Amino acid sequence: MGPVRSLRRSNPLTIVVGVVLCIFIFVFLLSPSSADSAASKARSANAASNPLSPPTSPFRKQNEKANGKRKPPPVVHYKMNNVTSTADPVGNRETILILTPLARFYQEYWDNLLKLTYPHELITLAFMIPKNREGNAATLALQEQITKTQKTGPEKHRFASIIIERQDFEPPLSSQSEAERHKMENQKARRAAMSKARNSLLFTTLGPSTSWVLWLDSDIIETPATLIQDLAAHNKDIIVPNCFQRYTDSKSKDVKERAYDFNSWQDSDAARKLGEGMGPDDILLEGYAEMATYRTLMAYMYEEGADINTEVPLDGVGGTALLVKAEVHRDGAMFPPFPFYHLIETEGFARMAKRLGRAATGLPNYKVYHYNE
Amino acid sequence: MGPVRSLRRSNPLTIVVGVVLCIFIFVFLLSPSSADSAASKARSANAASNPLSPPTSPFRKQNEKANGKRKPPPVVHYKMNNVTSTADPVGNRETILILTPLARFYQEYWDNLLKLTYPHELITLAFMIPKNREGNAATLALQEQITKTQKTGPEKHRFASIIIERQDFEPPLSSQSEAERHKMENQKARRAAMSKARNSLLFTTLGPSTSWVLWLDSDIIETPATLIQDLAAHNKDIIVPNCFQRYTDSKSKDVKERAYDFNSWQDSDAARKLGEGMGPDDILLEGYAEMATYRTLMAYMYEEGADINTEVPLDGVGGTALLVKAEVHRDGAMFPPFPFYHLIETEGFARMAKRLGRAATGLPNYKVYHYNE
Repeated sequence: MGPVRSLRRSNPLTIVVGVVLCIFIFVFLLSPSSADSAASKARSANAASNPLSPPTSPFRKQNEKANGKRKPPPVVHYKMNNVTSTADPVGNRETILILTPLARFYQEYWDNLLKLTYPHELITLAFMIPKNREGNAATLALQEQITKTQKTGPEKHRFASIIIERQDFEPPLSSQSEAERHKMENQKARRAAMSKARNSLLFTTLGPSTSWVLWLDSDIIETPATLIQDLAAHNKDIIVPNCFQRYTDSKSKDVKERAYDFNSWQDSDAARKLGEGMGPDDILLEGYAEMATYRTLMAYMYEEGADINTEVPLDGVGGTALLVKAEVHRDGAMFPPFPFYHLIETEGFARMAKRLGRAATGLPNYKVYHYNE
Repeated sequence: MGPVRSLRRSNPLTIVVGVVLCIFIFVFLLSPSSADSAASKARSANAASNPLSPPTSPFRKQNEKANGKRKPPPVVHYKMNNVTSTADPVGNRETILILTPLARFYQEYWDNLLKLTYPHELITLAFMIPKNREGNAATLALQEQITKTQKTGPEKHRFASIIIERQDFEPPLSSQSEAERHKMENQKARRAAMSKARNSLLFTTLGPSTSWVLWLDSDIIETPATLIQDLAAHNKDIIVPNCFQRYTDSKSKDVKERAYDFNSWQDSDAARKLGEGMGPDDILLEGYAEMATYRTLMAYMYEEGADINTEVPLDGVGGTALLVKAEVHRDGAMFPPFPFYHLIETEGFARMAKRLGRAATGLPNYKVYHYNE
């Protein structure tokens, strides 16, 4: 309860200010058109005042009082020992940050997000979108859906806060066809750029009271509605479902499904030996015939009709859908944009987390679905 | 300019709310005692509304309107390609985040901070303080100085925002004497804990529009007042001044000075060879006779009367005072709590930055001073 000197004195000037304020409020309430523009001005002035905004958004407007004096800014305290990430995140009101590097916007991604039954008021969304032509189109499409959801949609759909970051990385994150992206020689540069994008998004949106971080790629278009609760219930530092893809069989025309993400694996002696023979800047890649690692891939561990809660230990993880206790990231686990034990990006992240004493777990029978280009 | 439906309709209820608001404002202005408590209540409700607050501070109060309806939260956009970190940070109004892991509070540290001539409205301070007895005392002492500076001190002294984070790390960051702390067998665990503290502080306070990060230890009690401008003028990714210490000569009783921080160095073949012969979990340490690295230490490069702007390339850096372009951290450079190329903490950070293509620079003739226990 510190002294607030300027408010103690009820001098004539402050009374005048009060009267003017009251008049303003009446005008504001009674005139629909001016109210509209005043509200939109207020919104833009307050854009950065959202408590979920990252720490260094423009603040100068906030620091000005009506009389032109700078207002002393508040001191914010955080007791981080009290932040939990438990098997019962809903019961414990744990906040979750959903991070999505986004190059193209898929309506199915957004529709799936809206269906998540985790309380939306505990969810913050943050996007990293390149500042190129394709990124502009994605931002427009995303923004349109956000407006629909946050302003006119049902209240239970609305998220606590949404942050959109625009930043370019070299090489560009998208603008390559799927075939081009998957070419072995393009993988290292592409995944280094993706690592930087993930790190930049993570470092600028993670807060001291975030409990969980869910990495969710923009082309994940179908997950169980209870995804967050289901994954968190395992109470693991890092947990990853099995990423599949639906497709239409060219012969039978039946809709079938196949494994999609091969970055979740258990290490092998063959891969370790390959790494030992490599130069310090070389990386091991999964899913290329010319580099047979003989790792055990979670993609192939799926068993029809088996327990969806079956857990397997993993040495590498994919990032299409990936739940991480926020403290793992806060301790320092990031996505290495450089070869780290000959691993990069999400696979390097799992290795780095292991160096921090944090293990990764896979759920081979718990499926999420990737878009089919 | 999205639609703001609820404000457009001037229904009787909103007019009643307006009248009540006006009455409240008058009461607030005319009654000094109630104004005081109302103001302090408003402050505590708004504590997290500061735009510089980290993204996940408690937000639910903010989302409630007077009528109990949840207000759609704003979407915050950041164009990160436009964030600069240049040789003229004042001219370009670049924001700086000063990060201090704090175990004990030194008045001289705070006094020195206040003297910095970099515009304080561009400076955010963030502290990581352990949640133990010593940390409680440090927080109290810090809080007292913050109140003095931010509420009653001259306006130009006030910082844009201040964040205090409390978190315990194992082993505790302080509670060891200087002699105990410097013991070789204690160094690895101590510096691993310090790395996690630095990462946790960094990951939760760095924002998308931060230009620079200044790491400043709580026992740095004397720097030039133009420290930030002087270091930034070199326009380097990572730059570190020379950390000295003043002491009283036991014989002559004269006040002399000596080199203090030995973590800023240029690598040597001997050190590289030592590293090659080590196990993957062993670390190289500087300043111990039993581990002669023959590195070239910046501490001993100081030349009386020489140009303070002399630059030297460095392979390892200390963290007592360390200026980093925020994009280096955002790309992923953190303080490895595990042996990284046999290096840990700030020295490991320099190595990691190098893996990211970012070099470290030292200023051997530019001095800052460490407290003398």
